[in-house]
Amino acid sequence: MPQIRQNIATKDWVIIAIERAKRPEEFVRKVERKSVPAFVESCPFCPGNEAKTPPETLRIDSGGKWQIRVTPNKFPALSSEGDSIYSFEGLKKHMTGVGIHEVIVETPIHNMTTALLSVPDVEKILQAYLSRYISVSGDARIEHIIIFKNHGEAAGTSLEHPHSQLIALPIVPAQVRHRVEEEMRYFDDHGECVFCRMATEEIESKERIVLESKDFVAFLPYAAFSPFHIWILPKRHAASFSEITKTEISDLSYVLRTVLAKIYYGLEDPDYNYVLNSAPLDTGSKYLHWYISIIPRVTKTAGFELGSGMFINVALPEKSAEFLRNVKIPE
Amino acid sequence: MPQIRQNIATKDWVIIAIERAKRPEEFVRKVERKSVPAFVESCPFCPGNEAKTPPETLRIDSGGKWQIRVTPNKFPALSSEGDSIYSFEGLKKHMTGVGIHEVIVETPIHNMTTALLSVPDVEKILQAYLSRYISVSGDARIEHIIIFKNHGEAAGTSLEHPHSQLIALPIVPAQVRHRVEEEMRYFDDHGECVFCRMATEEIESKERIVLESKDFVAFLPYAAFSPFHIWILPKRHAASFSEITKTEISDLSYVLRTVLAKIYYGLEDPDYNYVLNSAPLDTGSKYLHWYISIIPRVTKTAGFELGSGMFINVALPEKSAEFLRNVKIPE
Repeated sequence: MPQIRQNIATKDWVIIAIERAKRPEEFVRKVERKSVPAFVESCPFCPGNEAKTPPETLRIDSGGKWQIRVTPNKFPALSSEGDSIYSFEGLKKHMTGVGIHEVIVETPIHNMTTALLSVPDVEKILQAYLSRYISVSGDARIEHIIIFKNHGEAAGTSLEHPHSQLIALPIVPAQVRHRVEEEMRYFDDHGECVFCRMATEEIESKERIVLESKDFVAFLPYAAFSPFHIWILPKRHAASFSEITKTEISDLSYVLRTVLAKIYYGLEDPDYNYVLNSAPLDTGSKYLHWYISIIPRVTKTAGFELGSGMFINVALPEKSAEFLRNVKIPE
Repeated sequence: MPQIRQNIATKDWVIIAIERAKRPEEFVRKVERKSVPAFVESCPFCPGNEAKTPPETLRIDSGGKWQIRVTPNKFPALSSEGDSIYSFEGLKKHMTGVGIHEVIVETPIHNMTTALLSVPDVEKILQAYLSRYISVSGDARIEHIIIFKNHGEAAGTSLEHPHSQLIALPIVPAQVRHRVEEEMRYFDDHGECVFCRMATEEIESKERIVLESKDFVAFLPYAAFSPFHIWILPKRHAASFSEITKTEISDLSYVLRTVLAKIYYGLEDPDYNYVLNSAPLDTGSKYLHWYISIIPRVTKTAGFELGSGMFINVALPEKSAEFLRNVKIPE
């Protein structure tokens, strides 16, 4: 009998197709990735081409050269100039598209990938996220900040050089607002943060854990919406990513790198997205909890998902977690 | 300056990347579709292979042969046997995955596509939808029914023979429930159905109309979430698809076929999904309105969309509508 599971934090229902479920090995990448050089003359993110991007908003050096560069997106989805002006005429409700859209170039090496970086190099990426998150938070027009990465074509990348993006919005998206309401309601009913409860129960049950460190826990949610859908939660309650401490950022680098490496070696470098979900800038801090969600793109979404917002997961989260726990990462 | 537009019915915000917007012609399919034969020996939906599917729940004949067959999905996402039993233990909230999952085989011809069918043949497909919708609604376990089609690989099809699917759920998905609440609130505030208002304003403004018939209007929503995202709304207020009349179903066949043909000829047969959105079975009938949503898969969703539930549309809905209005369909 299939199960319909509910994520207690988001209230999303997911069909877990137990009888149709595939074995974890069936999701291993089948098509070989084309080989890519370490340097590409025409790539705007390769060293020597710095003039092809707008001026840096942040740069982290290593050995006299840049290791990380953050620049405004050359083709931004939102405009950094101007004010949020609302125009509501009948059904034509819109506002000016102001906001911040930046690109975080994660390494000078064109054919590198986060899974293969050293932990200290991943730490620099997270430091860049933190620095830009805090800086952008100071912009009075901004209500919500999303940091995300698209790895590979199925994940929507248009440039192959490793990079992630920050989009700062002048609104709180409807989906985020609904989740805030659910999490507030959980706090009202139970007197605790739903994510803190989730972390505690997952650590106790062990079934869906991928990796546990001093400060973080990486697991497949009970209602994971796709095979290998992973959440990384800080154990310490904090609504905003901006509250992360120095020791936590160092610990998170290890966790993020290790989880991505397990995906890389276990599933042979699948396309994936990850998203850093932090609370909207002006909501309460008791009932929200920041986290990273990783979504390997090993299946496709179709009409059912588009029409319902629900997902059908053709893998058992417990089996996927066990598979990833067992992946050995070469030294 | 980009715009952030809000869909007044769903309350979803969409970034319309006005400055980055592509011309409609840039979304035309670039890779040629591989040629497919009219009959495939191994296809479970081709004539002669009827024994490869579970027994029919509906069959519509034409000239002594079947034209449409509906059968339970051989590998259903939900089980048709058993009761909805809830089990809520801490974070492990789930229910038994009971429901109905059927396949509507739309034509005996393996390499046919809805855009090229005759209007009377499309009418038979819609009659099959209606008949199954009404029948499944009688199952006391069912709360919500979704009918959808996946055309092409990017739209998540696994079988190329033209077919659509019906999934009847024992729950109302969280996203659908949120929309019901928004639509109820609109009715409370304005004393009218938000979709009726939208149809009226779209018909008046003409800007985003693709096609208008006696009973239906096809348009790109003001906050269309992707290029060529189209809604087909009945002009007469009705919450449930089950309320469609004989003359309306005949009119809808013409509208659906024509819109799909405009997409087929204008964009060279892109992959697409469509979804028939009908009200949950036991909600009020004043403030909800059934409709069909068509989503050509000409762009990919990435981390931003996964993390926010928001979309970035890289085409202007007004330009996309104008482009489709001008597509001529060969006689």
